[in-house]
Amino acid sequence: MSTMEKELRVGMVGYAFMGAAHSQAWRTVNRVYDLPARARMSVICGRDESKVAEAATRLGWEAYTTDWRELITRDDVDVIDVCTPGDSHAEIAIAALEAGKHVLCEKPLANSVEEARAMVAAAIQAQASGVRSMCGFNYRRVPAVALMRQLIESGRLGVVRHVRAAYLQDWIVDPQFPLVWRLQRDKAGSGALGDIGAHIIDLTQFVTGQRITGVSGLTETFVKERPLPSAAAGLAASADGSATGPVTVDDAALFLARLDGGAVGTYEATRFATGRKNAVRVEVNGSLGSVAFDFERMNELEFYDATVPGTEQGFTRILVTESDHPYLSAWWPPGHIIGYEHTFTHELRDFLDAVGTGADPTPSFVDALQVQLVMDAVTRSAEQDSAWTEVAPALAEVAA
Amino acid sequence: MSTMEKELRVGMVGYAFMGAAHSQAWRTVNRVYDLPARARMSVICGRDESKVAEAATRLGWEAYTTDWRELITRDDVDVIDVCTPGDSHAEIAIAALEAGKHVLCEKPLANSVEEARAMVAAAIQAQASGVRSMCGFNYRRVPAVALMRQLIESGRLGVVRHVRAAYLQDWIVDPQFPLVWRLQRDKAGSGALGDIGAHIIDLTQFVTGQRITGVSGLTETFVKERPLPSAAAGLAASADGSATGPVTVDDAALFLARLDGGAVGTYEATRFATGRKNAVRVEVNGSLGSVAFDFERMNELEFYDATVPGTEQGFTRILVTESDHPYLSAWWPPGHIIGYEHTFTHELRDFLDAVGTGADPTPSFVDALQVQLVMDAVTRSAEQDSAWTEVAPALAEVAA
Amino acid sequence: MSTMEKELRVGMVGYAFMGAAHSQAWRTVNRVYDLPARARMSVICGRDESKVAEAATRLGWEAYTTDWRELITRDDVDVIDVCTPGDSHAEIAIAALEAGKHVLCEKPLANSVEEARAMVAAAIQAQASGVRSMCGFNYRRVPAVALMRQLIESGRLGVVRHVRAAYLQDWIVDPQFPLVWRLQRDKAGSGALGDIGAHIIDLTQFVTGQRITGVSGLTETFVKERPLPSAAAGLAASADGSATGPVTVDDAALFLARLDGGAVGTYEATRFATGRKNAVRVEVNGSLGSVAFDFERMNELEFYDATVPGTEQGFTRILVTESDHPYLSAWWPPGHIIGYEHTFTHELRDFLDAVGTGADPTPSFVDALQVQLVMDAVTRSAEQDSAWTEVAPALAEVAA
Amino acid sequence: MSTMEKELRVGMVGYAFMGAAHSQAWRTVNRVYDLPARARMSVICGRDESKVAEAATRLGWEAYTTDWRELITRDDVDVIDVCTPGDSHAEIAIAALEAGKHVLCEKPLANSVEEARAMVAAAIQAQASGVRSMCGFNYRRVPAVALMRQLIESGRLGVVRHVRAAYLQDWIVDPQFPLVWRLQRDKAGSGALGDIGAHIIDLTQFVTGQRITGVSGLTETFVKERPLPSAAAGLAASADGSATGPVTVDDAALFLARLDGGAVGTYEATRFATGRKNAVRVEVNGSLGSVAFDFERMNELEFYDATVPGTEQGFTRILVTESDHPYLSAWWPPGHIIGYEHTFTHELRDFLDAVGTGADPTPSFVDALQVQLVMDAVTRSAEQDSAWTEVAPALAEVAA
Repeated sequence: MSTMEKELRVGMVGYAFMGAAHSQAWRTVNRVYDLPARARMSVICGRDESKVAEAATRLGWEAYTTDWRELITRDDVDVIDVCTPGDSHAEIAIAALEAGKHVLCEKPLANSVEEARAMVAAAIQAQASGVRSMCGFNYRRVPAVALMRQLIESGRLGVVRHVRAAYLQDWIVDPQFPLVWRLQRDKAGSGALGDIGAHIIDLTQFVTGQRITGVSGLTETFVKERPLPSAAAGLAASADGSATGPVTVDDAALFLARLDGGAVGTYEATRFATGRKNAVRVEVNGSLGSVAFDFERMNELEFYDATVPGTEQGFTRILVTESDHPYLSAWWPPGHIIGYEHTFTHELRDFLDAVGTGADPTPSFVDALQVQLVMDAVTRSAEQDSAWTEVAPALAEVAA
Repeated sequence: MSTMEKELRVGMVGYAFMGAAHSQAWRTVNRVYDLPARARMSVICGRDESKVAEAATRLGWEAYTTDWRELITRDDVDVIDVCTPGDSHAEIAIAALEAGKHVLCEKPLANSVEEARAMVAAAIQAQASGVRSMCGFNYRRVPAVALMRQLIESGRLGVVRHVRAAYLQDWIVDPQFPLVWRLQRDKAGSGALGDIGAHIIDLTQFVTGQRITGVSGLTETFVKERPLPSAAAGLAASADGSATGPVTVDDAALFLARLDGGAVGTYEATRFATGRKNAVRVEVNGSLGSVAFDFERMNELEFYDATVPGTEQGFTRILVTESDHPYLSAWWPPGHIIGYEHTFTHELRDFLDAVGTGADPTPSFVDALQVQLVMDAVTRSAEQDSAWTEVAPALAEVAA
Repeated sequence: MSTMEKELRVGMVGYAFMGAAHSQAWRTVNRVYDLPARARMSVICGRDESKVAEAATRLGWEAYTTDWRELITRDDVDVIDVCTPGDSHAEIAIAALEAGKHVLCEKPLANSVEEARAMVAAAIQAQASGVRSMCGFNYRRVPAVALMRQLIESGRLGVVRHVRAAYLQDWIVDPQFPLVWRLQRDKAGSGALGDIGAHIIDLTQFVTGQRITGVSGLTETFVKERPLPSAAAGLAASADGSATGPVTVDDAALFLARLDGGAVGTYEATRFATGRKNAVRVEVNGSLGSVAFDFERMNELEFYDATVPGTEQGFTRILVTESDHPYLSAWWPPGHIIGYEHTFTHELRDFLDAVGTGADPTPSFVDALQVQLVMDAVTRSAEQDSAWTEVAPALAEVAA
Repeated sequence: MSTMEKELRVGMVGYAFMGAAHSQAWRTVNRVYDLPARARMSVICGRDESKVAEAATRLGWEAYTTDWRELITRDDVDVIDVCTPGDSHAEIAIAALEAGKHVLCEKPLANSVEEARAMVAAAIQAQASGVRSMCGFNYRRVPAVALMRQLIESGRLGVVRHVRAAYLQDWIVDPQFPLVWRLQRDKAGSGALGDIGAHIIDLTQFVTGQRITGVSGLTETFVKERPLPSAAAGLAASADGSATGPVTVDDAALFLARLDGGAVGTYEATRFATGRKNAVRVEVNGSLGSVAFDFERMNELEFYDATVPGTEQGFTRILVTESDHPYLSAWWPPGHIIGYEHTFTHELRDFLDAVGTGADPTPSFVDALQVQLVMDAVTRSAEQDSAWTEVAPALAEVAA
């Protein structure tokens, strides 16, 4: 790499599932891409000193701190990577932006529209001084998803008619699975809706280039009381004795939607789809073709081209591993597939590329607010007998 | 077969797509199953004499008539098989039942709840004299669907949490596809909702044993004006000059649902899912397992059993071609798959078996009314901004 | 149908698995295709009078006889359909041809090259008097297979490099499965090789248009002694007490091959592939594309077109159910799949079409002899430590 | 990690495709596994100084050298990782072992049986002083492959009857693809046989626990002359002008095999399977079940269990991403799949685990010699008209 490249010293808040995934990506990104900026894994931050110290060593960070307020004011940190539960996103991200640090914030952007609006305001203000912000909707960076967007953007699907999106998991099917933070409204904001529904909302708006304009929603909590947790790792966890507590979030969220290009959609986010482990499924049907995707086979995209001769039409399983597929220049020969962690490697590539060249990375906080507005509309619709609920454009909000 | 078996002389009304499929099934059913009644392809009925005469010869019916009113009073006919568009179902079926003929009526039962209620009343009255009636939801007779029901009924899925149903076709994606009767409300009652949505409503209620209790619906007509048709065959058709007419039915119908066992569901019926030809897709997730089905691979059922050791769990692709699978005793060695037409062969097997033994076949007209009530609720919800709309139990209606 | 059409009165020998499949096809073929000849199910023939009488009634034949020699001389029979085990093919077919009857003979044509040569000689002699003969390699009539051939013939695959063929079944994995006639050399000629290997030899020569010129073979009998059988139906059977007998055929036959267009191939036929029920699998790789097929999903063809843009290449799952796909004009709307039995319906369509127009149907007995020569070479190679064994062209044989 | 852990300083020879993959794995392995030894990326070695210097920076090695002879005698290097073409494996590995360095050598172990024997001798001698050696058959470390072995080893498949293995690629289908080193016998030893055939030989012997005892082989070079190369990266390359040279290796190698537990097998390695990018396919059929694997979906294993009730049997698609699946403790929540590079991460985990605890890692050089003996037999059989060729046990060789 060039000696002229900028070094960006990263301070990451959080060291659990997302912290581990981001660390692997920070460690890898500049090894495989030539970029105008080089990340340095400077400081990791967490509240429990012994755990964060251990994480620093294991994940390869140069230093650690237990105080995120100290972190964001350090002179030797340029970027704050927010990997905490949603309840602290707004406070940390806003403070970091005000301290002049570029911010990469995990999704969902916030636990409420109000918080998200405040974050957008802070991001816009910071932007004036060249401070960048981005929300980490990593599934946009799946090569097959990026290819889906390219196909739709270039008109290969014609007029988009249908969106069919589901994010299916099953890790809390067992009623004895404990009450981890993701099942508590005060920490997580919502349940399946914000944790995984947010992804398919962003992903479908991203690939279609259309905005969801209204929804009819329904949410359900199948298991209303769960044992209190003891330990957790990744999405796994174990219970601690017989004490229980109330589940305060949705186990599943379903909604119908209309998009501003005339398409209609069904959306479903659930953690009760037994046997579906991480099935992020999106199908888009247009007047000239269709695409279909399932993250459990993340290196594949199904593409139907209705313009080829009728007897040869069918869904083509594109193995998205060619060097001229999106993000693939970095990787292995065709057919040597890549894994989940590189959605983050690609996200950081785009982040470093933008920050290094002085551009605004996407998805912006405004994009993320748009997702938040949809989630908010789904929640309100569900509370009002599924009544149709409009979703305002975030840009108009911002302009107002 | 025994000489003691009863002969049932069939009069079929209609000779288009359904008429051809039913003819193939009537011709086959007694060749492959031992049954207490034997069907005789006696009379076929249609309005156009030259066409119905040609159909009689080609499809193998002994006689034909152009008058269904004459047909239902003939002494040499025991069963009336109604294969006409929905607008004539009620009139023909009720008259036939009153004339003491057993009735097999294609789905949807009727074009409105009112008609369906009248048909149920006639069926109940006729039942007292041993006259049988049945509605032809043939997808119940896919062996994989019947196996799905067995698995759920026997508790292998535990508590059912999710239903995910879609019936996807693409035969009218082209805006130049003509305005066939299936696109006219006065003939067809509704569009995708009644034609194909009816199937997934019935199918999911059948396999789960649960009733849909409320819905939030949305319908859309993407192409609002189409050329007038000249000729049609199966679902194919050609246009006739430049005259056009308005499409008066839905191109797509989507709805969310709750079922009376606590499950929630997403439903979608569309003729605009480019590349999906006859994708009747149903997935059911329960606390102990899941099943998934796609009619385009009708000989396969995916079954996930969450009670086997964790490292061996996965969706099992059951090839539903073993001789002890439902309906398979009649067919070929394992792996020698069967086709669409045998959903009708199986339907007739069950019909002949019931009529031959003096029992009531299912689905009954009451079952079909239940489907009609759901469709009606979807339509009303869609007209009222997707407001939640309750669905009453048909049995209560009937009793009242 | 036209009143001018020719009636062909069929006499079928055999009433087991193949007899039932052929009956279903004879009953159906003229109902769905317009053809220059019309089949009449005249006489069925079998040695056991009570069984053949029962079969005649159940399968719908007008008369029966227990003597095939009587059958072939009847004036009221025009076509002899030979559905017996291989040991009687030569005798029946030759006699029938000499009696001036058209012959459709099940595969493999014979139990030895010598018999097959004699049958070819008889067919050539009969042909001079307008008597037609055909061997029933029904898998050629799978629409997806016919499409495969079209694609290769029209150059879409470029130069064919690889053939990868396997016919996998598992119905005799259990060592207690009885010693049915298919496991006895004197009845069946060979085991997996002739029963199912014959199909993939014919199928690959058919779709590639190339002839196998040499082989290196290996055969194996895993279970050498089995209980004697009592009853059998389809491929299922039950054992009768504790008496056993020796298995005198191969359980599996594997071979490498070279084809006369420069391709190389692997072939495998086995009845010990646990879990594979009727997996007739063929993949062909050419310089410009590939095709892949598995009979367990007989309505699908995978097609890879290496001439489309690189980022969009992939295997396209063609659902071979469009009305302009081979044989599909007769059937249902797209996506409404067909089953195994219609490979026979299509076979009879081609047979009736050829005989009705005075043409020679294919595959001819010469084509079938070519398959026999390959099987013979495999057997001899296997006996000689897999030494390379040339396969002569049958046409040269015939000419000589 | 413990302060007691041993540091192993690695010197890697080669910096192309394998060098990049190994670097990513060395960088990752201790971040995700707790191991008794910790790798340090000390020195990278390559002949071209500017290229190796650039590789050192990009891939993250502390130092570089252009002389492997210097490398293997450095005091600050403990492990030599041989990632060069096969023609230098023997010389480097033997010298390194003699210099007391642990050796990890890429596959195939050598370009001839003679070289492999010499390497085995050196490995056995070095072993006496606690110096370890291992051959890098990374596909053993695919979690689904390791699970396949566990299932077979624990008897879930019963008696193994069939092995069906193919390694299919298509990167040299274009006759204009240049004459890279992998197409030159003096560099690569052989073509598809050694490069990819070696993998399926090792993999099938590994999962079945059976040794190949004899083969009948066939090789083919479809394109005999190619343009000379200019640049290469991964498996991609570009040509340089119009000069051409002869292809001196096989484009495809096919063979039949017998294994010492009674199984028979078909094997195929080719770079001409258009559309197949890295399809390492293995299916094993046993008397009680089957397994099937395709590397293009490396996170999945198909498992058929013939001992469950017949109506529920089928191939189960196990998503091998559970934390108690082999190697998976390190990775992400279920359904968040991993990629190709982690076959190397897992390989290094096993290597570091063995060296750190003073044990011999596997596959040993003896295991790799066994693979070499099979390849040699295939080559000799192919040269002798596919005559059956026995394969001796490497252990006997070693003992002798």
